[in-house]
Order: sequence, then structure tokens, then C-alpha cells
Amino acid sequence: MNNPYQYAKSNQQRFLDEYQELLRIRTISTQPQHAKDVARAAEWLKAMMLRIGMDRAEVILMPEGRCPLALGEWNGAGEDAPTILIYCHYDVQPAEVADGWDTEPFEPTIKDGRLFCRGAVDSKLHVMSNLKAVESWLASEEKPKVNIKVVLEGEEESGSENINAFIAAHPERLAADIAMISDGAILAPDQPSLTYGLRGITALELHVSAPVSDLHSGHWGGSVHNPIQALSEILAQLHDENGAVSVPGFYDDVAAVTAQDRALLEKVEPYLQAEWDDVVSAPALWGEAAYNLPERLGARPTLEINGIHGGYTGDGMKTVLPARAFAKITCRLVPRQDPERVLNCVVEHIKRIAPNTVNIDFKFGGMGAEAVLLDVAGLALKSAAEAYTYAWGVEPVFERAGGSVPITFECMKVAGDVVIMSYGLKSGRAHGPNENIYLQNFYNGIQATIKFIDLVGEGRG
Amino acid sequence: MNNPYQYAKSNQQRFLDEYQELLRIRTISTQPQHAKDVARAAEWLKAMMLRIGMDRAEVILMPEGRCPLALGEWNGAGEDAPTILIYCHYDVQPAEVADGWDTEPFEPTIKDGRLFCRGAVDSKLHVMSNLKAVESWLASEEKPKVNIKVVLEGEEESGSENINAFIAAHPERLAADIAMISDGAILAPDQPSLTYGLRGITALELHVSAPVSDLHSGHWGGSVHNPIQALSEILAQLHDENGAVSVPGFYDDVAAVTAQDRALLEKVEPYLQAEWDDVVSAPALWGEAAYNLPERLGARPTLEINGIHGGYTGDGMKTVLPARAFAKITCRLVPRQDPERVLNCVVEHIKRIAPNTVNIDFKFGGMGAEAVLLDVAGLALKSAAEAYTYAWGVEPVFERAGGSVPITFECMKVAGDVVIMSYGLKSGRAHGPNENIYLQNFYNGIQATIKFIDLVGEGRG
Repeated sequence: MNNPYQYAKSNQQRFLDEYQELLRIRTISTQPQHAKDVARAAEWLKAMMLRIGMDRAEVILMPEGRCPLALGEWNGAGEDAPTILIYCHYDVQPAEVADGWDTEPFEPTIKDGRLFCRGAVDSKLHVMSNLKAVESWLASEEKPKVNIKVVLEGEEESGSENINAFIAAHPERLAADIAMISDGAILAPDQPSLTYGLRGITALELHVSAPVSDLHSGHWGGSVHNPIQALSEILAQLHDENGAVSVPGFYDDVAAVTAQDRALLEKVEPYLQAEWDDVVSAPALWGEAAYNLPERLGARPTLEINGIHGGYTGDGMKTVLPARAFAKITCRLVPRQDPERVLNCVVEHIKRIAPNTVNIDFKFGGMGAEAVLLDVAGLALKSAAEAYTYAWGVEPVFERAGGSVPITFECMKVAGDVVIMSYGLKSGRAHGPNENIYLQNFYNGIQATIKFIDLVGEGRG
Repeated sequence: MNNPYQYAKSNQQRFLDEYQELLRIRTISTQPQHAKDVARAAEWLKAMMLRIGMDRAEVILMPEGRCPLALGEWNGAGEDAPTILIYCHYDVQPAEVADGWDTEPFEPTIKDGRLFCRGAVDSKLHVMSNLKAVESWLASEEKPKVNIKVVLEGEEESGSENINAFIAAHPERLAADIAMISDGAILAPDQPSLTYGLRGITALELHVSAPVSDLHSGHWGGSVHNPIQALSEILAQLHDENGAVSVPGFYDDVAAVTAQDRALLEKVEPYLQAEWDDVVSAPALWGEAAYNLPERLGARPTLEINGIHGGYTGDGMKTVLPARAFAKITCRLVPRQDPERVLNCVVEHIKRIAPNTVNIDFKFGGMGAEAVLLDVAGLALKSAAEAYTYAWGVEPVFERAGGSVPITFECMKVAGDVVIMSYGLKSGRAHGPNENIYLQNFYNGIQATIKFIDLVGEGRG
């Protein structure tokens, strides 16, 4: 077993068992009652990093008991060798059977070559693919020609506030020549893709109130602007009839979709359309008429309502005229849009259109990240493309992802060259019920990371 | 104690204690987990009716364990005497401290001459005012010159389906010369009012769905019509910019507001406006510009959204593009509007305006009641007016109530003449938090019912 590629192939079953062990830990960072689970996972990851032969590993506790980081280092390539930083997150979104799961969300279930579990694709797949690639290198006779830093975040699903503060305070801890951010998804099980752009994000809550307390809808209905109705009227004015956001200034700074973008993204369209038909399967496509599907999802900003509530929503009827209603809103951003500025545009627009028959109020969650565009001609992306070709036997296509990986922007501050490598699938239902991966993509991912470390070490691009 | 008026005055404290005992029973008819409480209250009421000297009392069980009726009869006035039917309901709306209560919702709390409790005004006040008036008569030497039937419903807040079926199957059980429906509210503590009109009601739920399951709003946002957004867009098209319902056909059969209506309702306006300022206290009045406040609340139909839900509404953010969203809607109806027809108009309008990018679906709760207009010159209303004048020392004004008392329509089938007598206040926050009554109105109510029985017995009008 002198070869990391062979080592990984010989240990697939054990790697899978360990991956499932991590999946069973309910690392829900948005729910305070799971803080202990998140902390336990961080210790589990530290122990694993030491066990696979890294020089050093530690759990970095965060202020106010927030979700910790797990850091690991291997410096065996020597002071003059380049350093790779591998970033993944081990926290997950909430999940309950009632959301529509066919299996227990935190019990990994293997069926027809797929593994179903919350966090399977987003993003414990990446945590484990990379740790097992590092293990495969360190267990082999031939050692990596690069030093390796691993940073595993526990707060990605709830704002990443503390890792950003940690990087700002200790940039040297994560400083590297190349940062590999391992998150997101590829297009198809047998078609790897390389993401060269990511949308940013900004978030707010809109609260509408009118009467001082809940009222009998018979006694007072017809004399007061129902807050649910007023909220609906406001929300209905955030898009025009062509699917574009109708907030003045929203598109002001948006970087145009270039001819190069169009050429790269065209190759992605059939894959995305097939996935849309399978995963989304809405009655019809919707969105900005002037842009095709990959452009709508990757190169154009959006305004999405993530939640709404008001009045009585339990069983039966309650003839209430509610005192208040609220909606949770996020905007996905593209390059050149400033999260703060976009947030202000939305707030000012809502203030302008809100009727004077109701009170409005905003809450801000502190979630904000700029969009990212990476250099498709850099060493990192070229090595990544070759690593995918090796592991999948197919050249990757290039795309711009709709999701946010806020850490990318932070990593660009501490690493000269950044690449995003994804091993899961868009059809993997990240954040939804029945989240899943193809097992083969886990094994391919390990091979791809081994190869990537190889290529960067050789200095080849 | 030969006089029912004196008897009632001498027993105020005991009457109040018994009223509070009933208030403590959580008779929430819309929540199956409280079915036992409702059944217990029915037995409690039956026992009280027997204790106060009625000839007969029983609990009528309903199909599928639904909330029972409590019936009582006193036939001491003889076969040739007229019969009064007194209707009240003892079930209540849900209530939780989290809704904004300053006290435990099911623990009666007396403060500054007021009593705070769920059901205090809607409608255990009426149950107890009337039972204690009957007790006062039966405990006196002089007996009523009318026979008395009492029907206490346990399902008014959740559709009254079974009492309607009971009346249809056994009309003789509730047959009477005059039906007194005791529910609703008067204008001010020292200004009684007589309701000669009630709005009807019809209800539906609108469900909107688009993707087959919840999605990651980053991965797919911008390519699918968000169900919360589509629902908001539909709801925003149910009213025009003048506060009128914009559903075609909605106003087709609406009885016009007559000159007599305008003259009667004009006297009510200052009271209603003062209560609006106190109870509603929204930033501005809202509604149909062509109608004043009492007309908007009593003589015009409305469409109200009672509840809305979609996506993630817990703590923190969940960047979900939800699979579905729904809203609960009720319409308040005025004379000549058919509940079924109005429901169809709303459904057809929504089907017409719903975009083809989403699926829509309806649920119907079976809640439907026509509006009612009573004869202001009949014996019942004239006796009621005199009874109010006796108990309050002030002549009542006439109004049309915004709420629905669906039983009124049913009682009109079994009684020649119908009157609605209310002892609570519009400011009593029925269905909302901190529901309350003025204790004095409880005592006045007992006196008014005693007088009403007196007057109807004398055949005076």
C-alpha cells in the first residue's frame, strides 16, 4: 500500500462506516439545543485528524458557546513547500421527518447505491472525502509535496460570523498558497463540474402590524388593513411580471453576463434542465425571461421569500384578524453587488410602497456575503480540472453556482489562489428532505482530492 | 325574596363565583384534545339547570364525539302560554399566554371592575346571565308567564354543524314563539345596543405549491415561482386600491344600505369610532371609502385572511425555497348573499388569476352561514329594547353586527320571532388576548333577561 490512490480503494468500506458515524451526529448549528452535538462533532473530527497522522489538531472554541472550528495541520513537506488549505463545514440545516423525509433524517440509509441522510451532501461528504484523501497520503510511503491545513467549520449554516472573525484576528493560522473550498454540488453523477462563480447573500425579516392585538375578524373586519393582506401586497410588489426583481437600484452594480460566461454556461444548460425536471419539477420554469437557466441560477441576483407566518395556522378555523405577520427574505447576489447596499435598496423600497394603514419593522440576521468570481486560468482551477478528469474519467464543465459559500470570500484574503471542489449533486436535495449522495461520488471525491494534492505538489497546472 | 329582580341583586357574589367556575373549564371546541373539557362543561350546565328548578335537563351527545348540546326546559307556565327559547354557546376560541395575554387565559382575574378570561364575553357571560335570570324567576314566588327552553351549544366556534343537524332532525325540541339568541356585544358599558342584522360567513383554505419538495434557495432560486411569492401575489389581488373586494360577482346580490339603515346606524358611529380608537388602534382606518364605520362593519361584506404559513418561520435563517404555502380565508356576508355562491366566486377568481407556474388547491371547512336581518318592529325586538332600558336606564341604539351568529338563521326556522341580546362589549376582545367584561354588565344582563321574560309573558311589546 505505497500509493495513496490504492490505499483509498482498499479502505472504501471503513471510510464509508466513518462517514456514517459523522452523519449520525445532529450538528444543527441554527438550533441552540444542538450546540452539544456540534461540539461533540468538533472533538470527533479533531481526534480523527490526529489519528490519520496530521502533526497537530485542535478545537477552537468560539465566543458565547457558538459552534467551534476544528483545525488540523501537516507540515511534513517542509518550510519551502507550498501549503494547501482545505475548507469544509460539518454543520447542517434542521431536518424533521414531518418535512417529508422517507427515512429518519439523522440515520444514514443506503439504497440503490445512494446514501440518504441530513448532511450527506451538504457537507459531510466533503469533510470525509478530504480527510480520507489526506489519510491516504499520510498512510502511504510517498508523502505529499505540499503542506496541508484543514479547517472544518461548524457555523456555515447560520452565518459564519465567528470563522470570519477568527480569520480576521489570526490570518496566519489559515494562510496558504492555495485554498480548496470543498462544498456545493456537481451537475450529474458522471459529469463533474467546476464552479468559478458563487452568488453572495443578504437577509432580512419584514414585520407588518396594524391592530394593537389580535381581533375578532367579524367585529372589526372591513375597518382595518389586515397585516397578512398588507404583507402580501408588499411582497407581491418585489417582482415584476417578467420575473425580475422590481426593487429600484437592485440591479445597479450587477456585473454583465459576458460572452465567455455565455460560452461556458451553455454547456451546462442541458444538465441543469434535466436536474430541474427531476428535482424541482414545478408546473413551469419561472424567472428572468432574458436569461437561460444556468444564467438565472448563477449569474443573476434573486430575491427569495424563505418563510411567512401570520394569524392562526393550526387545525380548524379561528376567525381572527391578526395583529401582525412577518416574512423572511434573502437576496442572492452576483459579483459587484454590495450586500449592505442591496439590503438598503430592499428596505427603502418596502418603506416606499408600504401603505400608511400599517406599521412596518425590519430585523436583520447579520447574514451577508459578497459574490465571488474565480480565475479559470489559475493553477488552482487548472489542477482541479485535471483532478476531476482523473477521478471521473470525464473533463469537467465550468459553471457558476447559485448558492453562497461565504467562506470563499474570506479565503481569498489568506490564500493567493482559490478553488471550489464539489463532489455532491444538485439533485442531492441539500437543505430539503431526503438529502442524499451517490456512494460512487464519495469514492471519486477521495481520488480527486488525492490527485489535486498531487498536482499542486508537482506545481503542475 | 318574592321578586326575581331582588333575588338576583341579593345573589350577585354567588352568581359571579359560579360564572368563574364555568370560565375555568377549557371548552375549546376547535381543538380535539379539549373534547373532554367540553363534555365536562355540558354536564356541569345540565346539573345547574336541574339545580335552579328547570323541569328537565339533558346532555345531547353528538356524532363522532363532537361537542354536545345541553338542553333544559321549564313548562310551568302551562300549555297555553307562549314559549321562549334562549340560545347561548359555552365553547370558546383557543387561547395561550404567548398570544399576548397579561394573565392566565383560563384563570378568571378580576381587576378594576373587569373580569379577564377566555370566554368571559364570548360567550359564557351570556350563558350565565341567562341561567341566573331563569334561576331568579324560578326561585321567586311569582312564576314566569312563559315556558322556557334553554339550549347551550358547545360547537359554535367550530362550525355549528351538529346543532344545525339536530334542529333539522328534531325541530319540535327547540320550537318556540320567540327565540332569544344571547351572544355578541353592545357598544359601551353604559350604552346598550340591539343588533338587528348579522353578517354571515363562508370559509376556505388556499394552498399553493410549485417544486415537489423544499429546495435550497441558492441552488434553485430564480428558476421556480416561489409558492410564498405566488400566494402573496394571489392574495394581493383580492382587494382593489379602495379597500373593496375585487372578486368578480362578490357584491352581486348584496342588499343595498337603505335610508332607514343609514338613519339607525348614524347614531352608532361615534361609539364605534371610539372603540376602534381604543381596541383596534391601527395607524389608520381602512376599508371601503364609500361607507362609514358602522356600515363597513355591519352592512358590507368582507374578505379576511385569518392565517398564512409557508417555509421556515423558526429562529434564525433557513435558506429554503419552500414546496408550498397556504392561507386561511373567511368572507363575512350580508343579506341576500348565498355563502356557497360567494365561495364559488372566490374560488373561480383565484383559479383565473393563479399563474400557471404553480399548482393551487382548495380546502373547505364546511363553515357557512347566511346573514340575517331582523324585524325591528316585532314583539321580540320591542321587548328587548324595553328590557335594556330597564336594566341600563338608557334606551338602546340599533346596529348591525359584523360578526356571525350562525344559529340565528337556524332559530328563525323554529321560532316566529327572533331577537339577539348581547351583554358584553365590542372592546371585550373576543377571540383575542385579554378577553374581558365589565362585572356590571353581567349584573345588568341578568336584570335585562329577567325583564325580557317578564315583558314577553305580559304579551307587551
